[in-house]
Amino acid sequence: MGKRPLMNRAERAQIAMMLEVCAYPKPGNVDRCHDYTDTRFEHFLASTILVRPAFEAAERNGGRVGSLIKEAVMLTNGHSGGNTHFGAFILLIPLILGEDIAGAQRIVASTDVLDAIEFYAAFGLTEVRVVEDDDLDVNDPESVAMIREQGMTLADIMAYSAPRDMVAREWVNGFRLTRRCADLLHMHGHGRDAIVRTFLDLLASEPDTFIIKKHGVEVAERTVQRAGEVLRGERDLGAFDAECIRDGINPGSIADIVIAGIYVALGEGWRWDC
Amino acid sequence: MGKRPLMNRAERAQIAMMLEVCAYPKPGNVDRCHDYTDTRFEHFLASTILVRPAFEAAERNGGRVGSLIKEAVMLTNGHSGGNTHFGAFILLIPLILGEDIAGAQRIVASTDVLDAIEFYAAFGLTEVRVVEDDDLDVNDPESVAMIREQGMTLADIMAYSAPRDMVAREWVNGFRLTRRCADLLHMHGHGRDAIVRTFLDLLASEPDTFIIKKHGVEVAERTVQRAGEVLRGERDLGAFDAECIRDGINPGSIADIVIAGIYVALGEGWRWDC
Repeated sequence: MGKRPLMNRAERAQIAMMLEVCAYPKPGNVDRCHDYTDTRFEHFLASTILVRPAFEAAERNGGRVGSLIKEAVMLTNGHSGGNTHFGAFILLIPLILGEDIAGAQRIVASTDVLDAIEFYAAFGLTEVRVVEDDDLDVNDPESVAMIREQGMTLADIMAYSAPRDMVAREWVNGFRLTRRCADLLHMHGHGRDAIVRTFLDLLASEPDTFIIKKHGVEVAERTVQRAGEVLRGERDLGAFDAECIRDGINPGSIADIVIAGIYVALGEGWRWDC
Repeated sequence: MGKRPLMNRAERAQIAMMLEVCAYPKPGNVDRCHDYTDTRFEHFLASTILVRPAFEAAERNGGRVGSLIKEAVMLTNGHSGGNTHFGAFILLIPLILGEDIAGAQRIVASTDVLDAIEFYAAFGLTEVRVVEDDDLDVNDPESVAMIREQGMTLADIMAYSAPRDMVAREWVNGFRLTRRCADLLHMHGHGRDAIVRTFLDLLASEPDTFIIKKHGVEVAERTVQRAGEVLRGERDLGAFDAECIRDGINPGSIADIVIAGIYVALGEGWRWDC
């Protein structure tokens, strides 16, 4: 106890990824108690281990947001689980580079066209769900040409995506939900139960944009409503979890934001191990 | 897929630690499905992340076995879960330094008195169970004096402990069970089920010395017998697991050896993610 130095930023980010996937029961997402067929619990934990060099580079040497996100994706998509943490990296890389939310906002504000292009290369490595009528389709080489032509920075790309993507929205609104998540963690005490309660609070108040892309607005709104019922004791958490799993309703974007929120809370003294 | 380089040795060791603790059901040990009161699943996974600098130092710069084991223990005992992987580090550090079992045997053969003294410092940081009538008590400053006086190397210390400690015994017998564990993994196919099956095979053939130290030989022999009954379909795995947990019977030394075996198997092409 207390014999080792405090965690550095890279470790805080890794521990945040680990704690998020371990917390249970988390309605609809991979956790300690269930896997998805293609992506299992161990895939998420392997990514948590294998991403380290990208996080360490960000902490030690700084570097460009776009290329660091790309490096994080490359380091973690070698296993059969495919992409596990793309959204989390979009939040964690600026947070590690900038140390905290204020610093991450400065990092985000300073991105440029090269960051945008490198980010698109990272995006192309993943199988992240793309909205079909999107002008900035990653599979379309014209997109990169358009980014160059219009001089779009990575922050511009995020602003473009913000209406349909709550992770991108964090870049635009000063990491509002990340901040709220960290505040909720402090409020709910320490450890695993606080993470589950915080996850539910967010699920009951924010339509998850990953669910919207996959199932439409109606399903996302219904999930918000049902999470609220769980919080008010009107619906059983286990049954809600089983229902989400059955229907493939996984709030993946809220999970990404919870990871960022845990990172911030850990930096503010929140304890996971008590 | 296949876009990233193969795992390096430090990563293989970390992934081995992660896979071992995730595999379930593993009779009596912490796994995905249960915690102990003081040491939870997340503590094991945090150690898996936080040990990295010691493994990386071993891989990149070589270094002394004793001080590397001490560093690994220091990096991982800062959380409230206490010591989680001391036995595993005793096997993994020589395996990382030497790359494989043949290399680890050379490393072990080359240890000296300073390694022994540094190892004792690591041992003092843990709360590892000590046999009461042991001449080499870590809490006894006379032990270090005796090591110096008699010129005992770390290999000598392990030889001294070997009759009562199956992890120390690996140093003496050329990593016999580590090798057998890797062979069993190859034989049982890939992924989580192969780990569980391998764990059971070892449990059914080797009395766990951690159980012997905690509960005596009789309980350890009974555990071997019951694991055999599970393998022959004469006893229910879930019930056996619940019984072990209830009675505090945790085969911790076999878990350490399974970690080392997974490390070796991964280096020989065994796949965890299929």
